[in-house]
Amino acid sequence: MHSAKPIQWHGQPVNSNKFPMICTPLVGATPEQLGTELDMVLPKQPDMLEWRVDFFHGIANSAEVVRMAQSIKAAAGGIPILFTRRSTREGGEPIGMSEDQVVAMYEAVCHAKCVDLIDFEMSNDADHIAHLRSISRAHGIGLVLSFHHFSATPSQQELVARFELAQQLGADVAKIAVMPQRLDDVLTLLSATLQASTTLAIPVVSMSMGPYGSLTRLFGFAFGSALSFAVGANSSAPGQVPIEDLNTVLAIVNKSMG
Amino acid sequence: MHSAKPIQWHGQPVNSNKFPMICTPLVGATPEQLGTELDMVLPKQPDMLEWRVDFFHGIANSAEVVRMAQSIKAAAGGIPILFTRRSTREGGEPIGMSEDQVVAMYEAVCHAKCVDLIDFEMSNDADHIAHLRSISRAHGIGLVLSFHHFSATPSQQELVARFELAQQLGADVAKIAVMPQRLDDVLTLLSATLQASTTLAIPVVSMSMGPYGSLTRLFGFAFGSALSFAVGANSSAPGQVPIEDLNTVLAIVNKSMG
Repeated sequence: MHSAKPIQWHGQPVNSNKFPMICTPLVGATPEQLGTELDMVLPKQPDMLEWRVDFFHGIANSAEVVRMAQSIKAAAGGIPILFTRRSTREGGEPIGMSEDQVVAMYEAVCHAKCVDLIDFEMSNDADHIAHLRSISRAHGIGLVLSFHHFSATPSQQELVARFELAQQLGADVAKIAVMPQRLDDVLTLLSATLQASTTLAIPVVSMSMGPYGSLTRLFGFAFGSALSFAVGANSSAPGQVPIEDLNTVLAIVNKSMG
Repeated sequence: MHSAKPIQWHGQPVNSNKFPMICTPLVGATPEQLGTELDMVLPKQPDMLEWRVDFFHGIANSAEVVRMAQSIKAAAGGIPILFTRRSTREGGEPIGMSEDQVVAMYEAVCHAKCVDLIDFEMSNDADHIAHLRSISRAHGIGLVLSFHHFSATPSQQELVARFELAQQLGADVAKIAVMPQRLDDVLTLLSATLQASTTLAIPVVSMSMGPYGSLTRLFGFAFGSALSFAVGANSSAPGQVPIEDLNTVLAIVNKSMG
């Protein structure tokens, strides 16, 4: 259907080359809440789980974070885990930690090999990005470099430049999430995704957020986005659709484009 | 969700302002075949039926055409009927009639008031268009002026110019169907649709055809296309999806964009 690349690293597909993968966020604040989320989410068979650790009350204690990640990985039964501290600057929860502490947490998680990929914003300190690129690669963990804009959609040229920057910084996956102000912006995001997915060597993931943007969560894959976030239990960003709805639409679009 | 206009004329909605309307083509060659098609299609409750008269073996006899249209209208039980002779130049069946004969057939159908809208290509003779505009208006019948390109997608600027031309020629509805050669072309069609749907006074209908184009049949309404053709019994153009699939996707998209 398209020439876009599924998510993989070191030549290995993350999950059977499925295109797109469906990733369900976990946003629990406590081990109990995360356990409840997993009980709801796992029967829906997502292709990936994103643990948004910035929602986790135990985030300041790296040993607790590692234990929780190990617990999630054990429960997930082979579903790859994406570990994400979303910065407040790009839409995450306040966590009261310095960036050095955040990097140390990522490092501990990589050393423990308790996740499959990590997500880090490409707007972070260049030394931190280079360090986490090195650490994650050494432990066979994939690196998603991401960019989020919660109030607007940059131009197609700027979006493509962001995708390219992620690749230049060594990412295994380039991710962009932006807010459309008009329907035009949805088409801009899709055009940039199509362009980047055909010119970059790494897979790209993109979405517009909010009501208009839900269109891209449903059919952005047709324009090259390798992964869509969908709700299993709780939403982590505006416009995410239930995993059941996404599965239904994907099946119909794939049949129609067959 | 959008500012686009539903299909209506003389200030009356064609069908309860539903957006988008779902139109199912009828392509039978004989009254028997058309009867079988209607039996299959009507339980699926389309919002409009398009009778593609160029498939009808009795097309050369206007009295027979009128009788058939009356029979379809009676069976349709209030579902509006769109009457279309698609020219071979724009993807229709060979019919062995002169354009004067074709215009006389449209005229007979208008006089009999046995359909609700007629579709005529905007590339036809200007006098013929003006004549059918006048005749259809006099009988309270809507006029769709259409443009089809079965091998390529013109630029956004050209597409918008075609939509505008339809309005200038007095259309109640402007319709464009084009073939994408690349996924980019799908976005071009959607951009042109979005632009025309927000600048024109009349509703616009658009679709890309073929496998890539099926995306626009499913999601084009979000960018302003007021009608999508879907298969009830038989397809009349490449990429049409089953009416059940279109209904499923529309419900999910409307809920997601809610």
